Amino acid sequence: MREMKLGLFFAPGGHHLAAWRHPDAYPRGFSFESYIAAARLAERGCFDMVFVADVFSLTPDGARADSFRFEPITLLSGLAVATSKIGLVATATTSFNEPFNVARKFASLDHMSNGRAGWNIVTSSSTLEAFNFGLQEHAGHADRYRKAHEFVEVVRGLWDSWDDDAIVLDKERGFFFDAAKMHMLNHKGPHFSVRGPLTLPRSPQGHPILVQAGSSDDGKNLAAEFAEVIFTIQRDLGDAQTFYADVKSRAASFGRDPRHALVMPGVMPIVGRSRQEARDNYEQLQRLIHPEAGLAALSRTLGTDLSGIDVDGPLPDIEIEKLSQSRAVGMVLTARRDGLTVRQVYERLVVSKGHRQIIGTAADIADTLQEWFEGGAADGYNVMPGIMPNGLSDFVELVVPELRRRGLFRTAYEGSTLREHLGLPRPVNTRSQA
Amino acid sequence: MREMKLGLFFAPGGHHLAAWRHPDAYPRGFSFESYIAAARLAERGCFDMVFVADVFSLTPDGARADSFRFEPITLLSGLAVATSKIGLVATATTSFNEPFNVARKFASLDHMSNGRAGWNIVTSSSTLEAFNFGLQEHAGHADRYRKAHEFVEVVRGLWDSWDDDAIVLDKERGFFFDAAKMHMLNHKGPHFSVRGPLTLPRSPQGHPILVQAGSSDDGKNLAAEFAEVIFTIQRDLGDAQTFYADVKSRAASFGRDPRHALVMPGVMPIVGRSRQEARDNYEQLQRLIHPEAGLAALSRTLGTDLSGIDVDGPLPDIEIEKLSQSRAVGMVLTARRDGLTVRQVYERLVVSKGHRQIIGTAADIADTLQEWFEGGAADGYNVMPGIMPNGLSDFVELVVPELRRRGLFRTAYEGSTLREHLGLPRPVNTRSQA
Repeated sequence: MREMKLGLFFAPGGHHLAAWRHPDAYPRGFSFESYIAAARLAERGCFDMVFVADVFSLTPDGARADSFRFEPITLLSGLAVATSKIGLVATATTSFNEPFNVARKFASLDHMSNGRAGWNIVTSSSTLEAFNFGLQEHAGHADRYRKAHEFVEVVRGLWDSWDDDAIVLDKERGFFFDAAKMHMLNHKGPHFSVRGPLTLPRSPQGHPILVQAGSSDDGKNLAAEFAEVIFTIQRDLGDAQTFYADVKSRAASFGRDPRHALVMPGVMPIVGRSRQEARDNYEQLQRLIHPEAGLAALSRTLGTDLSGIDVDGPLPDIEIEKLSQSRAVGMVLTARRDGLTVRQVYERLVVSKGHRQIIGTAADIADTLQEWFEGGAADGYNVMPGIMPNGLSDFVELVVPELRRRGLFRTAYEGSTLREHLGLPRPVNTRSQA
Repeated sequence: MREMKLGLFFAPGGHHLAAWRHPDAYPRGFSFESYIAAARLAERGCFDMVFVADVFSLTPDGARADSFRFEPITLLSGLAVATSKIGLVATATTSFNEPFNVARKFASLDHMSNGRAGWNIVTSSSTLEAFNFGLQEHAGHADRYRKAHEFVEVVRGLWDSWDDDAIVLDKERGFFFDAAKMHMLNHKGPHFSVRGPLTLPRSPQGHPILVQAGSSDDGKNLAAEFAEVIFTIQRDLGDAQTFYADVKSRAASFGRDPRHALVMPGVMPIVGRSRQEARDNYEQLQRLIHPEAGLAALSRTLGTDLSGIDVDGPLPDIEIEKLSQSRAVGMVLTARRDGLTVRQVYERLVVSKGHRQIIGTAADIADTLQEWFEGGAADGYNVMPGIMPNGLSDFVELVVPELRRRGLFRTAYEGSTLREHLGLPRPVNTRSQA
């Protein structure tokens, strides 16, 4: 029986733009303890994984936004000790890192968590971020993806530096490892030159899980070639089915089993004991959006400074071609099609970072999750609670039991690694001599 | 009453070159659990901190060496959750990292550990490491230190991105932070261009502790200007007193209080219930050194391939000027002065990585630690157990009580941050407007 996969997308106060202003949100302020509590709650609900995005900048006008974040790997390494089963997926960019460092960090996390690490591969496009790394602008889109491709190949190669049984610990003869089971990488490519080997044994999962979220053509090809989990922004069932079929067929064209490329759209569920309660919960959040916060978030998403604009006027003309993120393109197209005001754009689209909002009872939410799951649109969901911790506890206490009653979700962890949770095979070491 | 500071220098199987071959060492193989057990044992002994070095390469002939290591920040983030009081100091190189990433990682660790983070600043000189980062060779010594100096200034500036009270979390008016309390860095220097701000609030310690271990003139100046803890290799009391006085006077010349630059030489204690037992423990370890392992370690230290050489012949001529590490220079000078064979060099010097070995009863060890501490040679010690876990448990159970009887070491943690353990002031934010 096929079961859906569930991830918890971390946001300290919740994913709704104004969540942090809610009286119930952020009870402890910005704190590691809040993350521990959230990860343990998700683990109690048998979620497959938690997921941390990464940002390297604040918007200068962002005083109204909840935008402080821990460095992702530091955070997840702490959570590895505070939890025992749930997968730990962190974002690391191919733009401001060295492949050797990335390979080593995720291999460390995989060892420390006994096989629960995953790497969300991103390329960075924000100029505000580039300013923190001595760059005036980013490489072009295609260049970024070519570099990302080589980066991933180097990281995978480094993860195969050692056969699984390379550490012999032969105290008698004095051999710590078997040198025949060590593989130098000797990579020399256009962007990177890396000799290897990695200074860690091969990790419990062989390779930490690879995750990708690009929706451009380059992004989908990178995902199809490498990614085992694909995060995506989908608001419409038909579009989601098209995306799903496209990714699966691209994966097959790379010689992969399409079942090993799991498509997980983001969803922001707002749960109520009744539909009215859910609707009230949502309206309460919407009323908390300060226009300056809405504008700042929209400006950040579109990469255009909209401060001072009339929020009840139409969205100004924006050149689609200059937008680097597919979710920004989607927002502009939707705004044009539906003739939305600026306020409507941020109220309908930006509040959930472009992701689908589902407002209703546990049964309503389970219905639509089931419809997409059985309708060729999703293998699972990246759950983005509107406010924390309540949005997550509502999901775990109300929606998860409903999914279980329908046989759509596990009642206990069957295995102990993230690969086992996701039903993904452990990669063989292609560099082994055996 | 002045008390000595103690750090535990991590090495999975122990610091003696052959420790891993000892029947009692490495009972669980390469495992995170061993690190957790060691950190908790050191915390039970009220150590100020644990310390992790960092290496990016194995020697190709290193199959006889215990050289697998976790990525340091990943490791310490996990240990932050597994412990509650002990300081957590990790090495990060200024050669293969970006200052923004380093600032962010240590600020994260400081938040997650409630003020227990420290950064050991190193510059990398090993060619084997450079090969993993697309470099054929490193920059020259002076250039590396100029870059390190700018790197540290950027990191400190980023740590002061926010006033301590910048997060206002004003839900009513909708202000997450007070923009007047945010400080852009806008750094533009020869090596780095970084705008800021850091995406984390100012951390509990204000700045994580800065640690440095260079012994060259450039290294000592970097330490004197910035470092709050100085690790050093000292085998001789007179040399150690000279080094101590030199560092303290350099610190004063930078306008610093010399008491806030703590000098902590490394020591490898081999403890016995009797002197004979200590001597037997040591001899047992010495007998386990395989000549190939001794040669490989010596080759790595000197940056010269000595494989195949007669270990009972003299050390070949090595140009002192080409050695990049001060400990290598010290070894060659000692070998020349004392006419040591290759075997004698690795048996006497390399086994403890150049550090001082102290072999004896708890009273013997306390005597010499006290002599240096009271004789103007040390403010404390970086303890390097010969084998793990026994060498550490012997130190905690036998030497620590002896130091306490003499009033030289704490009986309980007085504070909760690493700064409090070390008696160091919390840095004021020089960028605040107040």
